[in-house]
Amino acid sequence: MTSALAYADEQFDHFVSDLIALLRIPTVSTDPAYADDVARGAQWLADHLREIGVDHVEVVRTEGHPIVYAEHLPHDNRPTVLVYGHYDVQPPDPIDLWDSPPFEPTRKNGSLYARGACDDKGQMMMHVKALQSYLASGSVPPVNLKFLIEGEEECGSPSLAPFIKTHQEKLDADVVAISDTAMFAEDTPSITYGLRGLAYVQVELTGPNRDLHSGIYGGAVHNPANVLSQLIADLHDDDHRITVEGFYDDVIPLTEEERETFAALPFDEEGWLGEVGLDDARTEAGYSVKEAISARPTLDVNGLWSGYQGEGAKTVLPAKAGAKISCRLVPGQDPKDIAQKLQRHVEAHVPETITLTFTELHGGQPVLVDTSHPAMQAAADAIAAVFDQEPVFTREGGSIPIVAEFQRLLGLDSVLMGFGLNSDAIHSPNERFGLDRYAKGIQSIIRFQQAYAEMG
Amino acid sequence: MTSALAYADEQFDHFVSDLIALLRIPTVSTDPAYADDVARGAQWLADHLREIGVDHVEVVRTEGHPIVYAEHLPHDNRPTVLVYGHYDVQPPDPIDLWDSPPFEPTRKNGSLYARGACDDKGQMMMHVKALQSYLASGSVPPVNLKFLIEGEEECGSPSLAPFIKTHQEKLDADVVAISDTAMFAEDTPSITYGLRGLAYVQVELTGPNRDLHSGIYGGAVHNPANVLSQLIADLHDDDHRITVEGFYDDVIPLTEEERETFAALPFDEEGWLGEVGLDDARTEAGYSVKEAISARPTLDVNGLWSGYQGEGAKTVLPAKAGAKISCRLVPGQDPKDIAQKLQRHVEAHVPETITLTFTELHGGQPVLVDTSHPAMQAAADAIAAVFDQEPVFTREGGSIPIVAEFQRLLGLDSVLMGFGLNSDAIHSPNERFGLDRYAKGIQSIIRFQQAYAEMG
Repeated sequence: MTSALAYADEQFDHFVSDLIALLRIPTVSTDPAYADDVARGAQWLADHLREIGVDHVEVVRTEGHPIVYAEHLPHDNRPTVLVYGHYDVQPPDPIDLWDSPPFEPTRKNGSLYARGACDDKGQMMMHVKALQSYLASGSVPPVNLKFLIEGEEECGSPSLAPFIKTHQEKLDADVVAISDTAMFAEDTPSITYGLRGLAYVQVELTGPNRDLHSGIYGGAVHNPANVLSQLIADLHDDDHRITVEGFYDDVIPLTEEERETFAALPFDEEGWLGEVGLDDARTEAGYSVKEAISARPTLDVNGLWSGYQGEGAKTVLPAKAGAKISCRLVPGQDPKDIAQKLQRHVEAHVPETITLTFTELHGGQPVLVDTSHPAMQAAADAIAAVFDQEPVFTREGGSIPIVAEFQRLLGLDSVLMGFGLNSDAIHSPNERFGLDRYAKGIQSIIRFQQAYAEMG
Repeated sequence: MTSALAYADEQFDHFVSDLIALLRIPTVSTDPAYADDVARGAQWLADHLREIGVDHVEVVRTEGHPIVYAEHLPHDNRPTVLVYGHYDVQPPDPIDLWDSPPFEPTRKNGSLYARGACDDKGQMMMHVKALQSYLASGSVPPVNLKFLIEGEEECGSPSLAPFIKTHQEKLDADVVAISDTAMFAEDTPSITYGLRGLAYVQVELTGPNRDLHSGIYGGAVHNPANVLSQLIADLHDDDHRITVEGFYDDVIPLTEEERETFAALPFDEEGWLGEVGLDDARTEAGYSVKEAISARPTLDVNGLWSGYQGEGAKTVLPAKAGAKISCRLVPGQDPKDIAQKLQRHVEAHVPETITLTFTELHGGQPVLVDTSHPAMQAAADAIAAVFDQEPVFTREGGSIPIVAEFQRLLGLDSVLMGFGLNSDAIHSPNERFGLDRYAKGIQSIIRFQQAYAEMG
């Protein structure tokens, strides 16, 4: 391990160059216009894995974007780590808010700015570079490694579950390792043991069969934009609790111990809000900001549209109004169940004058990982050694739906060792990744593999 | 008059061709991209007035789109009619719902389909063609005529009031004649004596300083799209009355007589709703559909926007949300006053977590015209002779703000002799104008001028 650590240190500038090469490929998975680029990204990654000496590498065609699968299995009697990550990225919009072009990676103030720098190319590449460090320094990696790197994480991973289902033996392992989450803070390394799930729906209301003149019809026609507003308003009560019947039924309540841990975490609430331009938070009554963003379910409008959106005044009474609405879910809740409850609620509240179209767009299971798993302990020890500080065990508010699928389909727990920061602006303009964290992440993974080999 | 009527009859096909030529010019006033076309429309109209032999024609430059002014004053001792109309049109969006291109006029089933066919190019041109019929058939028109045809009616007429103010003597007349309203029904010719006004505002809410990841921030950040929905929902109570404080204070209540007239009007409510695809109306409690659409004030959302509106699921917590909201006003109400009351209401209801930008976009005074004016009687007689049926006196739900300005600035009443139909789809895709009504309108105006000369 010592020589691998030394190699990673010496070769760090090359490791950054390799990441830059991958970041240059605009692997936007949700927009079909980028399909060729996504394919090119998969090919680049496969070629790179071969170049560093990985035994077996394949680019797997799917109905959507390709999956890159690789394995390096030098041991018969050592545990196997299945590394999961994704090489696809979010759309870069709104482009004009980027200070440097999203697909021309730019080094500034110790960070690398590019779409995907943190989410997830930068973090995924740390696992590749850890393995490279063992191989190139002449050591045998201490564990068996499998890589499952998909290109559809940002559009709901439609091809991944089918692939896992049909390749359960191939993917057999002892634990999954994922770096696609954030540290609690710059100086607080973290291992995530809880993730929220997601139920994402679209509500479209139709009133009249065409846009109408508001002078001629105004006063007698139920306006779908007004009805949609009422519908959305009624989804929360004055305590900012969600009013959908049965919404909280299956929520596993936070334990007293968990609430104490949350309260003890270092958290600069004012700074956290200030960074996004806010003075005040708005949480569900009875819960702190930290609890509300990571361990409580939510309901938010993600998009809204109706009628005339251009300049000036158009006196139109719109025929249609629509909204994208999604719920972050917590352990115990099921996305299918919540989407159905939401649908029943909306159906019950839409007046007879209006026609409803309700569409489920996306769902993801919430996750709780057993913190006593040996791989969790190995990761904690590795991170503590690199950061000179024990990591905290946290819950994170985002979703990695595939973590629930690994539990369900392969019976595997996932170690979520993330090195992002909330200020990395993932999914936003000027996404970045601190190069110090890229370096420490690689060192942590090298150490994790050794520690897990000894424990597992 | 007889020869003018005969000429109009003989030359009707040419009158249609002339209208088609004007309809080909996309005079969309609200969108700066069409500015050259609007200017071209004004020039076409001025040239056309000169061609038919009008004494004096000018294209008046303004800070916005030009005004076409013309006069033909053959008499010293006859009344003067000031014809008002507009040559600008609404935007054609949504374009893909048109069966034929909006600026390629298409004859079908006895109607002419084009943006502006009815509102107001078709109706305005009837006055031009009536004058042409007198001039070309060798008669002297029975009254003095002035034409004031603007190019900004669909964007709030910003240049018209200043022009009237500085040209009061030039515009001196005995009455204003306007054809920019609808008949009560196909078989019910009408003269409008009441018009609703308009107060049109824009509400924009800002929460965080950028769009956020709903997983990382969801649960603690007040979502401006949810807040906007609440705000809009709270603008009506369960009786569909508007909750803005003082909103109804200055409404002149309908008299018993007016309510009886409304009740007696032939009105196929089911058919009226069915034509726009609706089974049920939604009115303010206590008022019929006819009353609600013409003599009661309203509040409607005209446009709504926030966050992600594209395909699929984007887990964004939007930074901004906005709405265009307008009120149709009835006699007694003042647009400025209502906009201020609305602003106070919204300001009082926006939570501290959200920043509000409130903009007044447009306002127009409601109008009541004296039905005993001699020109009103002349118009009624003329229409009765052409349609073989007495016209009904009605109130209309739309706004022609300039009618109030003519009262205020010139002390002139307006005769609103409209030949549109609600099914003409003005402001909507597939706007049209029945050519029989174009013909009857021209005949009615020829007769109106004669009758008014005899009465006035």
